[in-house]
Amino acid sequence: MLKEAVYHIAHGNYAYPVKPDTLRVMLRAGRGDLKRVTVIYQDRYQGSEQMLIEMEVAAQDELFDYYQADLQLKTKRFAYVFLLDDGVRRVFYTEKGFYDDILPNTQFQYPYIAIQDLWEPPAWSQGAVIYQIFPERFANGDPTNDPSNVEPWDKLPTVTSQKGGDLQGIIDRFDHLLELGIDVIYLTPIFEAPSNHKYDTIDYYKIDPHFGDLEKCKELVELCHKHNIRVIFDAVFNHSGYGFFAFQDVLEKGQGSPYAHWFNIESFPVKTDPPNYETFANDIYTMPKLMTYQPDVREYLLDVAVYWIREANIDGWRLDVANEIDHDFWREFRKAVKQEKPDALIVGEIWHEASEWVRGDQFDCVMNYSVQYACIDFFAKGTIRAETFAHRLAKVQMNHTQSVNRAMFNLLGSHDTERFLTMCNGDTKRLALAVAFQMMYEGAPMIYYGDEVGMIGKSDPDCRRGMIWDEERQDHEIFQWYKDLIALRKKHPVLRMGDCRTAVADSASNVFGFIRFNKQDQVLVLLNNSAYARTINLETIPWPREVPNLMQDLLLEKRFPVSELLVIEPFGVRILE
Amino acid sequence: MLKEAVYHIAHGNYAYPVKPDTLRVMLRAGRGDLKRVTVIYQDRYQGSEQMLIEMEVAAQDELFDYYQADLQLKTKRFAYVFLLDDGVRRVFYTEKGFYDDILPNTQFQYPYIAIQDLWEPPAWSQGAVIYQIFPERFANGDPTNDPSNVEPWDKLPTVTSQKGGDLQGIIDRFDHLLELGIDVIYLTPIFEAPSNHKYDTIDYYKIDPHFGDLEKCKELVELCHKHNIRVIFDAVFNHSGYGFFAFQDVLEKGQGSPYAHWFNIESFPVKTDPPNYETFANDIYTMPKLMTYQPDVREYLLDVAVYWIREANIDGWRLDVANEIDHDFWREFRKAVKQEKPDALIVGEIWHEASEWVRGDQFDCVMNYSVQYACIDFFAKGTIRAETFAHRLAKVQMNHTQSVNRAMFNLLGSHDTERFLTMCNGDTKRLALAVAFQMMYEGAPMIYYGDEVGMIGKSDPDCRRGMIWDEERQDHEIFQWYKDLIALRKKHPVLRMGDCRTAVADSASNVFGFIRFNKQDQVLVLLNNSAYARTINLETIPWPREVPNLMQDLLLEKRFPVSELLVIEPFGVRILE
Repeated sequence: MLKEAVYHIAHGNYAYPVKPDTLRVMLRAGRGDLKRVTVIYQDRYQGSEQMLIEMEVAAQDELFDYYQADLQLKTKRFAYVFLLDDGVRRVFYTEKGFYDDILPNTQFQYPYIAIQDLWEPPAWSQGAVIYQIFPERFANGDPTNDPSNVEPWDKLPTVTSQKGGDLQGIIDRFDHLLELGIDVIYLTPIFEAPSNHKYDTIDYYKIDPHFGDLEKCKELVELCHKHNIRVIFDAVFNHSGYGFFAFQDVLEKGQGSPYAHWFNIESFPVKTDPPNYETFANDIYTMPKLMTYQPDVREYLLDVAVYWIREANIDGWRLDVANEIDHDFWREFRKAVKQEKPDALIVGEIWHEASEWVRGDQFDCVMNYSVQYACIDFFAKGTIRAETFAHRLAKVQMNHTQSVNRAMFNLLGSHDTERFLTMCNGDTKRLALAVAFQMMYEGAPMIYYGDEVGMIGKSDPDCRRGMIWDEERQDHEIFQWYKDLIALRKKHPVLRMGDCRTAVADSASNVFGFIRFNKQDQVLVLLNNSAYARTINLETIPWPREVPNLMQDLLLEKRFPVSELLVIEPFGVRILE
Repeated sequence: MLKEAVYHIAHGNYAYPVKPDTLRVMLRAGRGDLKRVTVIYQDRYQGSEQMLIEMEVAAQDELFDYYQADLQLKTKRFAYVFLLDDGVRRVFYTEKGFYDDILPNTQFQYPYIAIQDLWEPPAWSQGAVIYQIFPERFANGDPTNDPSNVEPWDKLPTVTSQKGGDLQGIIDRFDHLLELGIDVIYLTPIFEAPSNHKYDTIDYYKIDPHFGDLEKCKELVELCHKHNIRVIFDAVFNHSGYGFFAFQDVLEKGQGSPYAHWFNIESFPVKTDPPNYETFANDIYTMPKLMTYQPDVREYLLDVAVYWIREANIDGWRLDVANEIDHDFWREFRKAVKQEKPDALIVGEIWHEASEWVRGDQFDCVMNYSVQYACIDFFAKGTIRAETFAHRLAKVQMNHTQSVNRAMFNLLGSHDTERFLTMCNGDTKRLALAVAFQMMYEGAPMIYYGDEVGMIGKSDPDCRRGMIWDEERQDHEIFQWYKDLIALRKKHPVLRMGDCRTAVADSASNVFGFIRFNKQDQVLVLLNNSAYARTINLETIPWPREVPNLMQDLLLEKRFPVSELLVIEPFGVRILE
């Protein structure tokens, strides 16, 4: 038995309540090392009877099997050990190590399921389809508010280009969003700021005049709500812009400014080249870092957070550079936001392993760049094959609770990355495959504006081109593909909220498949990431529910028996129910 | 290379800031598997130079080596990978797995050391000597406030005995505490309650009249403070007593009581046998569980927490049944308490693995029952030998940040356990050895009243006998031993705040030794847990500082060269500087 591989802790993603009387526990073990894992559990206090439950393998990566089970106990106070069986030896795994018997005081304990600890991201966010809009580039609905230096819409953008996009543009193009079928709009910043991206806020309380005003903002949110679409804004609280009133006051008054402590200034007078104050990314002088531990800075920013919910009725915040602000600030932020709107969504921008932030006290989820990286490597660049792809996904999935996984923003690209189609070298077959994965997989798929009509673009600024509205230049096939997949997702609740397990991960054929399932349904998704037709024997699929007799291809409206060998064309997709 | 054994996450005890520009990282690897581990780190943003640091083995248990290193970076934004070398192969260990090269987007990240995340338990609590008093049994200073049914002091107590101990008794016996040399008094509950233990509170705002009153309480705290002794109280917030006004109101008015939601009552009328409401330990009807998620319950209890700091100037709280109250409550509790008194101490009662609670947002430390269990098994019962003891300690130590380890209440017993000397079967040599360990080891040693004069007692109620004040019946040798060790600890700051590493863990001879060290000093502690004289070759000790030429035995005031073979008598202790 590979004891070094065995891991469990009684909190975080390894032990979390899913119902008032149900604790989900996970055990990690060496891949293929164990034949059977049983949880033996009972109430923490003496006298209660012992319960047994056999664990199931919920995921695998290259080194580990991840076992899961749901423990149920009316008294909500859990003490448990794992009985590990590798076919040769049986050993108890406890909080204090490995034993041949259950010794006193060695059980793992989840002391009590408190109502407050039983949390989930907002129900509406779990499995929702997100659409990210970079407002300056989405649509120009009101030329009268354009900046003076506005450039032609279709000219390739530079870092400083202004194109005239605005909120009226989004309203004007609302039918496009309705046709696509999205559930949530995420807007990159729209508060007053000199740049086109507006991550250098001048005034957190004011819509940028080139984008519109408070009334226009309310009109947009109301329009969205009328169509059951939620709206989230971008909270840029790590740093302000150079023109922010507080920083300007410090520039003017130096050490004597009542806002001097809002920033971390090494010496006075303030200098900008190089900056002698702390900034975003070390030396971007236009983005002075805000000292969010200072009570008045905190109060100011929390008021901003609440103001826009109250005033414009937005449904949540995406948090810029979320990981460079202290955890305590985010805890206060969560309290303030959820008090104002209990089902508001809080999404962090974190590009790396983020489990620390999604434990219930800070964010609901994050932008899932880890899955994006995996998609780039597997679908776009082909640098990894099916098995490695499956392992990378499993690692991310097993790092979070299930409800967090359902809310994660699964993106293929954003305003901060090269466009996915460009990473595919323009090969729409590869994009289509990735989109099928994204739309069928567990999580909240996020579409970066324009990807759905086949837009391309290298990294910033090229990924921020003006949206293609000229139907001649749009890729209608891709657009239809997005629409079909989103419609499918909406038609089948299991695709939104069902469990998700790998069904096929074959590096030789490069076929990757997974099953979404709940107590009633199961949907099998097969992706052939190769230039050759592949044949799948459906009888080899590890069906979580009963083995079906007949399957229906949800995209092709074709039925066939499970015993049939299923052929998937090159870069083809099969979605079977 | 045993990849399954390798573990790191970029938070918790595996990555935490120790200074504004210094991140401590830990890597776990298979025991003896790696020859060398190097951290390669740089600023998160591009362009910064790569730094290298070789990690040191800070601890070992039966399966793992725990490597540590401190990374320093002026910009406070860390990206890093580990280079693992097993003598045959060199592999990079990253957030995304094992690679032969450092690939883009794979580094672990500790995004930013925020001031707010750089926390420690109060400085005064780290390494302090704690003395636990069960007031009803410590000393009866004022017979006029005795309960009517008071029993003779020295009669063996039953579950319901009343002995008449009170706050005046503590004041009267203050010289004993001063002579012993303790730093902190922890009082089990002293608020009005019918039982002798007072964990069934009637009035959180009132000193139990059999113990004294507010004035007497203030007098005691002032006396302590005058002698630089801190005082912590016991917060019994998981449940109230049966006589608590709110529960009484519910008993009287049923569903119509404005306090009905303070408890979890299944149906009305309220019944007690068996209780039809949630209680402590499932069915103790005198202890109805408080619904700490209800805002008004929360407000009430937080006010209690602040009231006693403000009114009586206490220095902190020990939290009863801390793990059965939601995390959110404790976060609010911490904010309220620390706002009132920034250096107040918060100690949780948690008997099992508690790392989730000591991350900076909830408790400062916990009562370290994990170390107590190890001491029972090694010193008292001899069911484990030196190596296993060392492994058990290492596991606990590596589960927390260093400052938390320094504050952990390292107890040998409490009002909830058999007395340690009784577990030693009355063998004071074994107790003496355990006390030497406790007083020299990393943490805050906690003495349960009376252990220092050789008191015995089986589990509750027997472990709560009246304190022995009759000098004839006290064990003066044990008392002197406690005094000497505490004096030694105070004389040598390294014993309080120094690092702590295992030096010897030899199961054959059953000798366990550790070294406390800082940049200036190193103290070696050797414990011979066997009935035979043992010889130690001091040249085999892995000195963290320079190898000394001459060592001084701090207890024997004897000097000798390091090359000398050191003989330790049966159950003997050597403390060398």
